[in-house]
Amino acid sequence: MTAEIIDGKVIAAELRARVADEVARVKREHNLVPGLAVVLVGNDPASEVYVRSKRTQTQAAGMTSFEHKLPADVSQADLLALVAKLNRDPAVHGILVQLPLPKGLNTEAVINAIDPAKDVDGLHPNNAGRLAGGFEALSPCTPLGCIILTKSVHASLEGMNAIVLGRSNLVGRPLVQLLLNENATVTIAHSRSRDLPDLVKRADLVYAAVGKAEMVRGDWLKPGATVIDIGITRIPKEDGKTRLVGDVAYQEALGVAGAITPVPGGVGQMTVACLLVNTLRAACAIAGLPKPAV
Amino acid sequence: MTAEIIDGKVIAAELRARVADEVARVKREHNLVPGLAVVLVGNDPASEVYVRSKRTQTQAAGMTSFEHKLPADVSQADLLALVAKLNRDPAVHGILVQLPLPKGLNTEAVINAIDPAKDVDGLHPNNAGRLAGGFEALSPCTPLGCIILTKSVHASLEGMNAIVLGRSNLVGRPLVQLLLNENATVTIAHSRSRDLPDLVKRADLVYAAVGKAEMVRGDWLKPGATVIDIGITRIPKEDGKTRLVGDVAYQEALGVAGAITPVPGGVGQMTVACLLVNTLRAACAIAGLPKPAV
Repeated sequence: MTAEIIDGKVIAAELRARVADEVARVKREHNLVPGLAVVLVGNDPASEVYVRSKRTQTQAAGMTSFEHKLPADVSQADLLALVAKLNRDPAVHGILVQLPLPKGLNTEAVINAIDPAKDVDGLHPNNAGRLAGGFEALSPCTPLGCIILTKSVHASLEGMNAIVLGRSNLVGRPLVQLLLNENATVTIAHSRSRDLPDLVKRADLVYAAVGKAEMVRGDWLKPGATVIDIGITRIPKEDGKTRLVGDVAYQEALGVAGAITPVPGGVGQMTVACLLVNTLRAACAIAGLPKPAV
Repeated sequence: MTAEIIDGKVIAAELRARVADEVARVKREHNLVPGLAVVLVGNDPASEVYVRSKRTQTQAAGMTSFEHKLPADVSQADLLALVAKLNRDPAVHGILVQLPLPKGLNTEAVINAIDPAKDVDGLHPNNAGRLAGGFEALSPCTPLGCIILTKSVHASLEGMNAIVLGRSNLVGRPLVQLLLNENATVTIAHSRSRDLPDLVKRADLVYAAVGKAEMVRGDWLKPGATVIDIGITRIPKEDGKTRLVGDVAYQEALGVAGAITPVPGGVGQMTVACLLVNTLRAACAIAGLPKPAV
């Protein structure tokens, strides 16, 4: 058996196309142009790449992209003042402060200052709480992408046994809530869990988000399981170069899993597409329109 | 083998005594008297019993009890105005609006109006979000009681396999977060889960919160498991009278479990004691004092 490859690139492109269609519709029917504001503090090169990619994809979807670059030594007060201004700006429906922030800035205070209705990263405690309570909420983009990838294989996740490896605020914990909303039975395991191979063996759906290169081996998997690999680590190759790998030993897993996401080309492709989904949803909610069809 | 009985009555009394000691200490050292305000709308007899019990136990712990009774036909605006007044009142550190509210009142809006710092029921999305994010938060009282009962048997829950049956906002979902904070591996199962007996069989710690009388049978349990029974249902007896039972078939479980909470006399005993803990914690946090030693 060779696992079906879940192609994040194709699925993300389809999702962006559906977002663009809906953006065109709300523009036509309601004269509403969703706007995403991205705040970048300092000049971390990786963050600059992400921000550029967000801008390109936001504009390609027909939305307005606002970019705010602040120096690394900006004061907490000035950063909060910018967030407050974006909260008030009616052309801005989504606010994303690119993380990590430079040292000296209080990340939690900045996130708490974002209007929860515009919190397209889904990090405000109000959104986390609404999600944890099973209410409509803006959810973090990576877990949202994981669910969409899973549903490209399974129309319904109801009653399936899912395991989430890792309990971060950004991925593991919100993913548990989204899986519960899909009526899956969910186990959350982590660095203190015992018998990980045995726990993984029972799962129809495996979500690996621990950040340890190739930790999950092929023989841990239940034959036919769907594997969503959220980890991404750069490791050295024999020829002195490097390559990117996930948390799952991909070649081993190919022979056991029913379907699997590659790294790269899997989950990572979905994150910005889901950010566009959140911005569109936020714009519709703020305008009092029904939830868009994406 | 006969399971150890986890005596909620004794453990709750010990907890109340520790709270009373800490209340006496903060009064002596900081001139701070924690105050709990309970708001009762309408005259549901069961709610009146609960409110009376809260008042008695609050006063017995040395705290101030404030009671506000409003007629069943109170307007949403008047109820919100009372909550706003209690939010501002420096003598009030905890606010509890007794649920369920009479029809016509918007429960979610009322809960959202409570200052999260005074939300001793742990129901505000901000607290749920902080809990879901692994941050310090006021947690709902029943799950808090479940953890305390479990720790009366196990000093550490690290690496233990726990299963939570039921995913309500009041119990199941916050209990998952508290168990994760204790470094347990947690599975959350519910009405759509398959093979419940098989899932339960793997668990060292079983939390039943489904509200179905005696659903969990003795032969579902792993021998030696610790069973915390959160359900409470009144069922008819052969003699025409009634009796209270939990979600676990108690007599069967006694022969398999390592430890078990009775119903009544288990979890139910803990809820008001944990409300006192939350009120004390809220008072200390608002006053800028360190977290009290309970």
